[in-house]
Formats: sequence, structure tokens, C-alpha cells
Amino acid sequence: MRPSGRQPDQMRDIRITRHFTRHAEGSVLVEFGDTKVICTATVDRGVPRFLRGSGSGWVTAEYGMLPRSTNTRSDREAARGKQTGRTIEIQRLIGRSLRAALDLNKLGENTITIDCDVIQADGGTRTASITGACVALMDAIAVLKKDKNGAMKGNPVKQMIAAVSVGIYKGEPVLDLDYAEDSAAETDMNVIMTDAGGFIEVQGTAEGAPYSQDELNAMLALARKGISELLELQQQALAD
Amino acid sequence: MRPSGRQPDQMRDIRITRHFTRHAEGSVLVEFGDTKVICTATVDRGVPRFLRGSGSGWVTAEYGMLPRSTNTRSDREAARGKQTGRTIEIQRLIGRSLRAALDLNKLGENTITIDCDVIQADGGTRTASITGACVALMDAIAVLKKDKNGAMKGNPVKQMIAAVSVGIYKGEPVLDLDYAEDSAAETDMNVIMTDAGGFIEVQGTAEGAPYSQDELNAMLALARKGISELLELQQQALAD
Amino acid sequence: MRPSGRQPDQMRDIRITRHFTRHAEGSVLVEFGDTKVICTATVDRGVPRFLRGSGSGWVTAEYGMLPRSTNTRSDREAARGKQTGRTIEIQRLIGRSLRAALDLNKLGENTITIDCDVIQADGGTRTASITGACVALMDAIAVLKKDKNGAMKGNPVKQMIAAVSVGIYKGEPVLDLDYAEDSAAETDMNVIMTDAGGFIEVQGTAEGAPYSQDELNAMLALARKGISELLELQQQALAD
Amino acid sequence: MRPSGRQPDQMRDIRITRHFTRHAEGSVLVEFGDTKVICTATVDRGVPRFLRGSGSGWVTAEYGMLPRSTNTRSDREAARGKQTGRTIEIQRLIGRSLRAALDLNKLGENTITIDCDVIQADGGTRTASITGACVALMDAIAVLKKDKNGAMKGNPVKQMIAAVSVGIYKGEPVLDLDYAEDSAAETDMNVIMTDAGGFIEVQGTAEGAPYSQDELNAMLALARKGISELLELQQQALAD
Amino acid sequence: MRPSGRQPDQMRDIRITRHFTRHAEGSVLVEFGDTKVICTATVDRGVPRFLRGSGSGWVTAEYGMLPRSTNTRSDREAARGKQTGRTIEIQRLIGRSLRAALDLNKLGENTITIDCDVIQADGGTRTASITGACVALMDAIAVLKKDKNGAMKGNPVKQMIAAVSVGIYKGEPVLDLDYAEDSAAETDMNVIMTDAGGFIEVQGTAEGAPYSQDELNAMLALARKGISELLELQQQALAD
Amino acid sequence: MRPSGRQPDQMRDIRITRHFTRHAEGSVLVEFGDTKVICTATVDRGVPRFLRGSGSGWVTAEYGMLPRSTNTRSDREAARGKQTGRTIEIQRLIGRSLRAALDLNKLGENTITIDCDVIQADGGTRTASITGACVALMDAIAVLKKDKNGAMKGNPVKQMIAAVSVGIYKGEPVLDLDYAEDSAAETDMNVIMTDAGGFIEVQGTAEGAPYSQDELNAMLALARKGISELLELQQQALAD
Repeated sequence: MRPSGRQPDQMRDIRITRHFTRHAEGSVLVEFGDTKVICTATVDRGVPRFLRGSGSGWVTAEYGMLPRSTNTRSDREAARGKQTGRTIEIQRLIGRSLRAALDLNKLGENTITIDCDVIQADGGTRTASITGACVALMDAIAVLKKDKNGAMKGNPVKQMIAAVSVGIYKGEPVLDLDYAEDSAAETDMNVIMTDAGGFIEVQGTAEGAPYSQDELNAMLALARKGISELLELQQQALAD
Repeated sequence: MRPSGRQPDQMRDIRITRHFTRHAEGSVLVEFGDTKVICTATVDRGVPRFLRGSGSGWVTAEYGMLPRSTNTRSDREAARGKQTGRTIEIQRLIGRSLRAALDLNKLGENTITIDCDVIQADGGTRTASITGACVALMDAIAVLKKDKNGAMKGNPVKQMIAAVSVGIYKGEPVLDLDYAEDSAAETDMNVIMTDAGGFIEVQGTAEGAPYSQDELNAMLALARKGISELLELQQQALAD
Repeated sequence: MRPSGRQPDQMRDIRITRHFTRHAEGSVLVEFGDTKVICTATVDRGVPRFLRGSGSGWVTAEYGMLPRSTNTRSDREAARGKQTGRTIEIQRLIGRSLRAALDLNKLGENTITIDCDVIQADGGTRTASITGACVALMDAIAVLKKDKNGAMKGNPVKQMIAAVSVGIYKGEPVLDLDYAEDSAAETDMNVIMTDAGGFIEVQGTAEGAPYSQDELNAMLALARKGISELLELQQQALAD
Repeated sequence: MRPSGRQPDQMRDIRITRHFTRHAEGSVLVEFGDTKVICTATVDRGVPRFLRGSGSGWVTAEYGMLPRSTNTRSDREAARGKQTGRTIEIQRLIGRSLRAALDLNKLGENTITIDCDVIQADGGTRTASITGACVALMDAIAVLKKDKNGAMKGNPVKQMIAAVSVGIYKGEPVLDLDYAEDSAAETDMNVIMTDAGGFIEVQGTAEGAPYSQDELNAMLALARKGISELLELQQQALAD
Repeated sequence: MRPSGRQPDQMRDIRITRHFTRHAEGSVLVEFGDTKVICTATVDRGVPRFLRGSGSGWVTAEYGMLPRSTNTRSDREAARGKQTGRTIEIQRLIGRSLRAALDLNKLGENTITIDCDVIQADGGTRTASITGACVALMDAIAVLKKDKNGAMKGNPVKQMIAAVSVGIYKGEPVLDLDYAEDSAAETDMNVIMTDAGGFIEVQGTAEGAPYSQDELNAMLALARKGISELLELQQQALAD
Repeated sequence: MRPSGRQPDQMRDIRITRHFTRHAEGSVLVEFGDTKVICTATVDRGVPRFLRGSGSGWVTAEYGMLPRSTNTRSDREAARGKQTGRTIEIQRLIGRSLRAALDLNKLGENTITIDCDVIQADGGTRTASITGACVALMDAIAVLKKDKNGAMKGNPVKQMIAAVSVGIYKGEPVLDLDYAEDSAAETDMNVIMTDAGGFIEVQGTAEGAPYSQDELNAMLALARKGISELLELQQQALAD
């Protein structure tokens, strides 16, 4: 039934490659099937003005797509002079989600900037970004731990987080939508959860018909399954 | 327990005033307690380029806050030369939600532009905006119906929609958060539903601790109650 | 002769409502007939860089129109990323005029920001804005007087100011033009005066034929009459 | 009494040099003492969208100052990415004034763009710009007259216009203020008149104390004298 | 002598990987040692306005660096709302160079857009970009050749081009500078040549002391050697 | 053979007029035939952030063309809100070249800003700008020398620089191209040299066919001749 021939509750092949580029404190290539995102985490001393002197750290995120990561070329945002609304919405979601992984007070007055750059897109770029960025964040925290001047106050990591998309496609709940499904789905939902099974964010949008409470529950059950697999793969990557 | 003394499942006083300003095809002042938003609906012939020749219409929305609608003055976005990420996120949500109310094919090649301008803010501006804008949209459709040249193809109204915020405040699920609650809530969720009880959009964000499936369900139950009251008030306003 | 049936020297119904919104130090709804403007005054400690350490305060103004305050919707300036030339011209005029009402040295190093937002337009928005904003400014000054840390040096209020438009319409000088007159007038003049009868600003533009010294004098006489009525209404509002 | 030793009703040395640069249809260097402005007039076929098909032409103006035309360098507006409010105000004034010189219907669907670029500033740049630009405009009209395809409908020139500043300096009305006077004047007024003695625009601003009707009249009398001299010099330049 | 231990006339390891991403007509990963750039070529029907109806095609290029492709994170240009001067200079060079590879008249009214996105930087990003982009361009031309509607008029490929940097480092001419050399070089020169040995562009800048004609000649000799190696590698990649 | 009738190795008439405007520390009108550029040099205490505390000074440049300096009017960059790529490329070249004239450490923490504004263009505006700006720079340095608080550390002038364009026009190498030649040249090269005969920058672009090493050498020989004449004229101007 699915264009890819997958089972409704089947994720695509997931790959998480650490140390993908060499300059960043954390650098991960995350692949959800044909969706490929470079996630880097950069550590800087200091925090934005609204936190100065608070003792608290900050995590922020930026997102971009290479112009030809998609089937038809989209304008380069740097050349247009403006990020699209979609980009802004996504990078706010990534930043918010990753802040939930940390105790910002323990981070000390450090800022971690996450960059998620999509080099090839096939649906689910925001959930791949969050899942990969969380691994890059762990690598950046590890660098900060070794830094005598980093001034962290204990381990800031509260929990791992991962994200997956679910949806209703041709009337049936499915897990981890690719582009062919995403563009035709009746409902599209992004779910971000912790390794303790709590929700960080649920965003479900009816693209066609409204969805019912039962459909919502079915999608959340699929998301729970997918996220537990992603959390396992994150741990394997971090163990390498 | 709530700062306002309300019951957990109690909405604020809601007022919907039609024909608030005189130029727009639809013009509504919506009040959720001290949150006050002017919602106008403007009808224009023609559609954006990507729809030309498709026979389909379009609904889009823009959102703004007067600089001193809030407790401390925020920069005027027109003077900064840029809308904030929050504004962009909200206006995309409003537009997406209102498009769900209509059959755009029946609208014909007309564009309805919704403007939601907050003149006083006390939490819940996006849900008030959607609820009020849906009424302004109905007035605009009524104008278009009378217009011989409007070229609608039957009644484009599929369903009424309304929106409310729910959240976990001091550990308890509450309905229709005001600013005092919103800024201290552990979880904040915006729910948009149809008059048939389907979900158009659910956006739930853990601001502090993650939330559980039970908490999610409790919040959705409150939202369902609040939205049924709002749908009733919309009908009363439209009956006047 | 006038589209509204008014006498040449007759103002529209004027209403000045204080405390229109609840957050700002001064908040006034001013109505010149169907022209309705929300004027707020915000007090902030500190001054722009060019005045730091001077001991002097500052008053600045911003102006905007809701997109559908006019008969056809105009682009939202925040979305365009740019204020129009007209907006910039008007807000410079408002700020300059209100600075004339105060002794900025006595204000101390405080900044008062005036926001004039037109929610419904029917001609004369800039003169209504100045007239209403002067009342909001008085309320803001009163708040500052009660503030022990506000550091004013005596009463900064030198004089009340008010503004009105006059013009030549169908060959005859008229007072307080509405949109129907304004868009067809041969000459359009905005006059801002003090309660002692001095001129703060005179801006007279020939839209069609040039105007003579006699016409100029006739318009100024009308303006003088209108402004004395506005100053009276400002006092009544402040006395409430 | 005046820093320059001039009489209160004495203009600075005025020079109007036609054909100053070689590419533009009209190109004038205008000098009001040490204020030097290059005014060019460019003729283009066609009109802005709002006039297409109307048969009417258009005149528009842009103004700029070389960054070091002033005593301290000001930011280059092209590099800042934004024209200042002052620039926008001035170029709107120049355009409006020059449109008053022509019958735009007779101009046919042609656009004349005036560029006024200040290469050295010493007060009065906007009045010098208008006075010089009117001469450049005449040269551009002459080019258009010879153009068989220009499609003018008769002579579009209704009248010559010229502009001068007047003010109250140390309590006394003075004509054609230089920078030393302008920056210390109590009142600053720009007056634009036709060769038939009518007013096109009067803009008088109290920088310090308000001004009286008598002072207004005294300033207008000075302006009338100065403008008649300028109109004479324009004619001499055009006769060369 | 060189930080990398290379001989003065030794290139870094060069790798050219075609079909690196799957959506673009041409997609190449080019590596000059640790410098890695994704070069894509996108084919669109139609040309920019200034070429419409001319029968001629167009090639244009855009360049960007991922924020953390460098040792310290640079601002994301899309978020700043502006490309840097360096970016603009580089993308103009890339576009100009690649246009030299083609006979644009034979291309027909098609536009090929080159995107060069640096994912890891270690000096020489512009020369790597040009060298890789020329291969991507060939793949795009091959796609266009098979397209019945592409309307090319014969083979538009005039010549292959490749680019390399040379410089004076510690007094000695060296080939293909990495970042450690580039940031300390006295002279930095970028050379772009055809497979027939002609120069397309030479840009040599003295960063420290001026350079002599002899040094210029020595650098050009090194460039000639490096470029012949690059042209060979391009052919091998295209033969795969 | 040349449109102007000049010999292949003949410069246009060159004029360098110092003290052209009165406010700037250095102000030069430079004319290369019909190309006329105002070059000013402004001295400011302090340096950009990246140099603060380094003891080193800075030289930066900005470039602009009056909209009608060219045959057809180009958009005013200040009004477009953006400098073109060409402008940015040119001003970077001017700044880089002039920094090569000075020992920035001896300049002390002062910034010299060069503004090159083209009032009439006929090819070669960038080389005229550099040649004229170097003279303005000398005048600014002289002002700084007399300034007790300027805090220079000895004479920062290392060498004079001058610039000229050369090219291949109708198959023959020519010196100092005017617009008629420039727009038809097969190769266009800008050369910047010191008074000791070293190269500061060479930028040679094949506009049509690639160029050979022999042609490169021939162009450099012409450039050397032209630059020696320019250096002589700079000295004459500075001696006045």
C-alpha cells in the first residue's frame, strides 16, 4: 500500500554518522532513507543578552535546505535576503526541542548553536534534523566537559530526545512518511519524545479531512514505536 | 488555584462583535477576557500565481500585535523591517486553519485575506484570532454570495472552526490560559476543531517537564468543552 | 456643499477616550468622525545614544494603519519589510510636534514612545493622531510624576498641542476634511498649534492649483477655530 | 548679525550650470553658496503601473547626499540598505513640487525621473534641489519635444517653480539660511512658489518657540523676494 | 617547508564524485584535500528577462558555506538577510567562468543554475567550486541533450575549464594553497584556464608585499601544471 | 583603430583636482577623459571591532554611481535597499588596494574611509577611483600628521599606488579603455601597481576568447607604462 512498499509501522533505513565534518564540536550526518541532513553543534562561550548574568546557558538552532536538495530548485534564502516562513517554523521547533534535552542552568553561560542543513530531501527533514542534532549535541557537551574553562555545573543532559513523523495516508496511519506519502497525506503529525516516553512536542495538522481522537491515538502509538527505535540507534552511534 | 479564580474547565468571558470597523467585508472584534483582537476579512478577485487558472480560491492570513498591546512595548515589526518568528508561525497557523473551513474549489478564483491585529494581549491571542476570524470569514463569504461577478461555485463553507488553548498549570489541566498562566505553564497546547468534532490542528509543547498520554487526553477533553462553547457563541454572533 | 453636509467651519464629531487599553502608561482612542486612532504612550528609562549623559529626555513616535483600516486593503508594512514614505513622513511629524509640547530637559533621561495606530481611516489620521497622542502623553507624564525613580526635574509640560486639517474644497476653505473631501481638495493643509495660539507646524500643499496668500490666511483662520475646540475637548477628557 | 554677514533679506550667491554631466536629458549643477547639488532629469517611455493606459505622464524624484558632503560623514544609504526618513521626506517633496510645474496629461505616457545628489551641503539642500531640478526638467521637456515618438500632447509646462528657505534666527526673519543659521534657528520654513506668485508648498516648523501669524507673514514676504530672484536666475540659465 | 609537507608544485588529493545527490541534473562532490564542496547544476526552461527572445541561454551561479564549514562558525547568510561581499564576489567569478565553457547561443533559451555549497572548508573553495561545477555542468548538458523539448542548437560545450589557486608562501611560489598557507601567504592568485591552455581569469592579490613579474610568471607556471592535472581528473570522472 | 582615435598605448586626458569639496580631510575629483569620480577620504578615531586594542588602523572604501552617471539611468542602490554585486566587488578592490599603500600599524587606531562616487562614467571607473583615492588618502594622512591626538606612530605611507585598465580590443592590446572599447573588448584587465613597480592586484577576465600568456604580457607592459604616467600626475597634484 505504501509507495515504498514498507509496512505501516516500518521506519525507513536510518543511519547516524558522527564526526561527519571536522571543524564542529559535534557533526552528524543523519539519513532517514533518502533524506540526508548535516547537523552540527557549535559551542561558544557567552549567552544572548537576555540571559547574561543569569548563570544559565542557551541552545538555539538554524535550519536550511540546499537549493537543489529538492526535486525542483528552490530559491537560495541568502540570495532572497529572507528565510521562508517554513524555515523559521522548523528552526524554532528544533531549538525548542533540543533545549528540552538539557538543564540549561547546568550548562553554564555557554551557547550551543545547532545547524541543520538538508543536502537531500525526501520528507521528514525536521524530524531527522532533531534526531541527528541530539547526537551532535551530546558530542558538543562532551567537548565542553573536557574544557576546564567551560564552566559547566555538572552534567546538563537530562534526557535524549528523538522525533518522527506519522500521518494518515490513504485512510491508514503510517510511520515515517517519505515525500510521496507526505505530499498526499490527509494528516501529518510530528512527534518529539524523550527516552522516558514523555511528549516534548506534538504537532498534528489535518491537510485534508479533520482527524478523530482514535486516529490521533493510532498515530501516537506508531510514533512511540518509531521513536524507541531511533533512541536505540542514537545510543549505538554514541557508543561507537 | 487559577490566578483569575476560574475553575479548571472554565473559559474567560468571550465576546464576538461583528461589523466592528466599516470598510472590510468581514470585521470582528473578538475578546477572550482581556485579550482583544480585530479580525478583518478582505475579498479580492484573483488568486496568487500558483493557483491561476486552477479555478480554486485562496485564504491567507496575517497577524500583528500593536507595539503596546503587551505589558512592555515590543518593537514595531514594520519599523524593524521584519516579522518575528513568532508572528510568522502564528499567521501560518491561522491561514492553514481557516483554509480548512472552506472548499476552496467552490470559492472560485477569489482570495480572502484575514488580518488579525491584537490591540490588547492577555494570553491566547492565536486561538482568539482563529475563533474571531472564522466569523469574519463567514461575513466575507456572505458578501461574495451576493456579488454577481464573484463567480463562486456553490457554498464554499464546509464547517465552522474554533480554537482554544489548554495547558498543564501547577500540575493540573486547565482551559483557556491567560497570560499569568501561560507564562508559568508546564505544557501549552493549542487545539483547533470543527463543529463536527474533528481535529484541524493540535500543537502541544512541553515548556517544562514532558507530558504524558493521560495529560494529553485530559487537555484534549478540556479543549473539546471550550470549543463547543465557542462554536455556540459564533452561531449567536452570526444570528444577530 | 460638503459631502457630509457640514458647514465650512464645522468639525466632525470628536471623541477622546482615555484608558482605552490597559497596559500602556497613556492609552487614548481618538475619533474624528469615522477616523479612529489608538494612541499609546510608553515610558522607558534611558534615552537614545545621542542623548546619553545629556540629562535630557526624548519623545519619539511611530504610526501605522491596520491593513484594512482603509477602503481597499493596503499591504501590511511588517510583511513588506518596509514602512512607506507616507508613514515615515507622518511619524516624523507626530514626534516633532509632541516634542514641542515638553521641556525635554525637565523630562530627565526618560524616553516616551508614542504609537498611533489607525484602526479606521476617513481622512485626517495624522491630525487626529497628534491630538489624541497629546492626551496620552499627559497621562504618561502623570505616571512618571508619581514614580520616585523617574527622575524628572519639575513639570516638563510646556503646553498642550492639537492639530487639524484645513483645505480648499471646490474653491472654498473648509475645516477638518474627511476622505471624500481630502481626495478631491485643491489644497490640503495640516496645522499644529499650541494652547497659547502659536504655530508648531504648518504644512500646506497645493494638490491642484497653487493657492494665494488670502487663501492661506483663510485656512489658518479655520484651523485656529478648530484647534481651539480640540484643545477644549482635550481638557474635558483630562478632567474626567 | 548673520554668521555670513548677509542682510536678513539677502540670498547667497546662486549659480545654475546647465549641461553639467553629459548623459542625462537634463543635467544641472545648482549652487546656493556652498550648497552644491547635481540635478538630472531622465526621460523614459512608459509610466508606473497605476497610470498605464491613462494617457497621463509622471514625474518622480530621488534625493541623496554623498556620504562626505557634510561636516561629519554620514552612512551611505546604499550600504545601510535603507534611505533615512529625512531623505524620503525630501524626495517626496521634490517630486510633488515638480509635478505641480507640469500638466501631466500633456506629458503623455512618459516618466521623468529627477535625481538630486548633494555633493556639498551647507543648508538649504532641498530648496536648491527643487530650484535646480526645475531647470533640468525644462531641458528634458525640450528633448522630448524634439522626439517624434515622444507622444507629448502639446506643451506640458504650466509654470516654473522655485524654492527657498526662510526662518527666524535670533528673533529675526531671515532669507536662505545656511547651515550655521539652520542648525540654530527657532523656526525653519521651506516655501515653494510658482512664477505667477502662487504657493505650491509651505512647510514651517517651530524648532524652538512657536511662531506667530506675524512671523509667518514676515517669513513669507522674504520667501517671495528670494523666489522672484531665483525665477529670474532660472530664466537667465535657460536663455544661455 | 609547507605545513602539509607537500612539494611546492604538489596538489592536494583531489576527488570528484558524480551523482552525489539525486535530484539535480548534475550533482558533484568535489574534494581538494579537506575542502569539500557540493556542486549542483539545475536546468530550467527560459532565460532572465534581458535575454528573452534572443535565442541565447544563460548560466548563473550561487555560492554558500555551511555556517560551521569553517573553524569558527560564521553567521548564516539567510538569517542575516544578506550575502557577504566575499560570497557575492565568489559567485560572480564562478558564473562568469562557467559561461566561458559554453557557447550560450547553442544552449538555446535554457538557464543552468550552478549551486556551490561548501560543507567543509580548508582553503581554495572557489577554485574547487569551479572545477567541480564544470563537471556538474557537463552532466546537466547531457540531460538537456536527451530532452526533445530542450531546444539546444547543437553541442554548446566549447571547452572544459578548471581552476586552481597559487601563491607566494614564505617567499616561495606554491600550488593549491590550503587554509594554513592561504592565511599566511604574501600573494594569493586564482587562475582559471581552458583545456586548450588559454586563460579565462587571473586574479592575483598582494596580501603582504607587492609581487614582481617574475613571481607572477612562476605562479602561472605552477597553475598551468595544476590545472592540467585537474582537467585530467575531470575527464576520468566523466568517463566513469 | 580605437574609437577615440588614440594610439594603443595612449592614456586619455587625466586630471586630478584636489580640495574639490570642502568638508572631507581629503577630497579629489579625478577625471580619466569623460569618467569623473569624486574621491573623499574621511578620518575617524577608532577602528572596527576586530581591530580594537590591536594598535593597528584601518582603511575601507565605498563606491557608488549617481543613477544617471551612465547612458541609461540605473536604479539608485539606496532606494533598492541593496548594493549590486558589481558595486560590492569594486569597493572591496578599492579598499584592499589602498590598504596596500599604508603600514596600518603606523596609522594607529584610526580609520580612513574612502568614498568614490562616480558622477559621470565612460569606462575605467574603478581604476580612476583607486588612482584618485590614493591622492585623497595622502591629504587625509597629512591632516592626521598635524593632529596631536591622532596618535600615529611615524609615517604610515609605504608607497603610492595607481591603477589602470588594459585589454584586448579587436585583437590588439590597448591601454585605458573607454566605454566603447570596454563593452566590446575580448579581454579586460585591471592592474594596480606601486611606485616601485610591484603588482598589488592583477584581475584579467576573458570576456570573449581566452587569452594567451603573450597577450597577458603585452597587457601588463601597457599597464606599466600607463601607471608610471599616473604616478607622475599624482605627484604633480600633490606638489601643488
